Amino acid sequence: MPLPPTGASRLYPIIGDPIKYVESPVWLTKTFAERGHDALCVPMQVPDRALDAVMAGLAAAGNVDGILVTMPHKHTAFAHCATSSDRARLLEVVSVIRRSADGSWHGDMLDGLAFVKAQQDRGAGGAGSAIAIALLDAGVKELVVHDKDEDRVRGLLDVLDGFGTGQATAGPGDPTGFDLVFNATPLGMDDGDLLPVDPSLLDASMFVGDVIAGHGTTPFIQAARDAGCSTANGSDMVEAVQTLMADFMLDQD
Amino acid sequence: MPLPPTGASRLYPIIGDPIKYVESPVWLTKTFAERGHDALCVPMQVPDRALDAVMAGLAAAGNVDGILVTMPHKHTAFAHCATSSDRARLLEVVSVIRRSADGSWHGDMLDGLAFVKAQQDRGAGGAGSAIAIALLDAGVKELVVHDKDEDRVRGLLDVLDGFGTGQATAGPGDPTGFDLVFNATPLGMDDGDLLPVDPSLLDASMFVGDVIAGHGTTPFIQAARDAGCSTANGSDMVEAVQTLMADFMLDQD
Repeated sequence: MPLPPTGASRLYPIIGDPIKYVESPVWLTKTFAERGHDALCVPMQVPDRALDAVMAGLAAAGNVDGILVTMPHKHTAFAHCATSSDRARLLEVVSVIRRSADGSWHGDMLDGLAFVKAQQDRGAGGAGSAIAIALLDAGVKELVVHDKDEDRVRGLLDVLDGFGTGQATAGPGDPTGFDLVFNATPLGMDDGDLLPVDPSLLDASMFVGDVIAGHGTTPFIQAARDAGCSTANGSDMVEAVQTLMADFMLDQD
Repeated sequence: MPLPPTGASRLYPIIGDPIKYVESPVWLTKTFAERGHDALCVPMQVPDRALDAVMAGLAAAGNVDGILVTMPHKHTAFAHCATSSDRARLLEVVSVIRRSADGSWHGDMLDGLAFVKAQQDRGAGGAGSAIAIALLDAGVKELVVHDKDEDRVRGLLDVLDGFGTGQATAGPGDPTGFDLVFNATPLGMDDGDLLPVDPSLLDASMFVGDVIAGHGTTPFIQAARDAGCSTANGSDMVEAVQTLMADFMLDQD
């Protein structure tokens, strides 16, 4: 198979503004090629006011099979989807859209992507919401959310109410007795940041995740490893979501 | 420079329907890379009825710097150009569009492209018109058009009236005394086709061109070479126009 672009290449634009720092055009195009799919992820710089016109144009083109959505369109693009996953509907946010058989758009919010990107784009509140939803969606029975900002916790619990089969509550920042411990705050991005959790309370039975990507092994991840925990950092999540996104676009999820 | 696509890649869609056979995505993307320009020519399958929506979407995107136009949009896309070259205005046809500083579109009809593509798309009439315009545009003083279909010749002469500084007239298919001799008919595409011009009338002072591409050395070109003429076939034109298109898109024409 010739490498894209060819005249037969299928298109998966990523829409956002700014756009030039996105990495999806590189890795998604490469992933498609590895899967034998002649397709391109192309960057489209789409200012806020241009979303409707661009979405109409992409819908009218016959070889646009999917759209990746980044800031500032994650919320507004949701309205362009005729159907969407439960988790996307819950927050009215989409990060990926694919073409359905009838030509309409089907949206989803991919856990890892929302997890990492929300943290990068909007700080901990967005990442925390995305992680909480992903965990409930995956069947977690008991979820405790801790944040210094109690209003933010209450807002999130309202959103989560009735989603999934688990129970989400507010609680202290104490990991004792939990199987999974996630940092969704920016703590660890700057030298001298406090740890999000007291490291003496971590033990080897816990899986510890940290949304922070691109900062190597954060002090929190290092403390978790020292305690014998399995860990995943934001960069691990980015790799995982790349596979999820290709699966979604090729309808193999 | 990383190869496209990157997040910073500039976009030059080619719009048409069907689209999968176009070769511009391959060679224009390659040509841009050779010139150090991080840019992609991407195929967009745009049915007739979808042109306005797609053009509006492309206009609204901040990193779409140019558009290549193929069938069935060469005429209808002209109306989307705020400005255009004289030769494009004459036929109300554009084959290439680039973004002007104020964000509007500037259209042109590139000689060689129109020359070859018109022949491929619409038969000899279109190619003949495009060649005639290109020749007058290039300063040719005396142009004789020959066609078995006299109505078609009259129609073309009406279009050409007043264009350029040369004089276009109808005349016999006799190349005697001319510097340039072009075949814009399909003769030579099929085995057993008659030659468009009596080969005994060719002499070494003439430059002989043939629009037919992808059929190797046509009998007409072979006859011209046997007579000692310099020649160019449709494939030579395709190569030439690729350079012209990259120049146009980068505003280096």
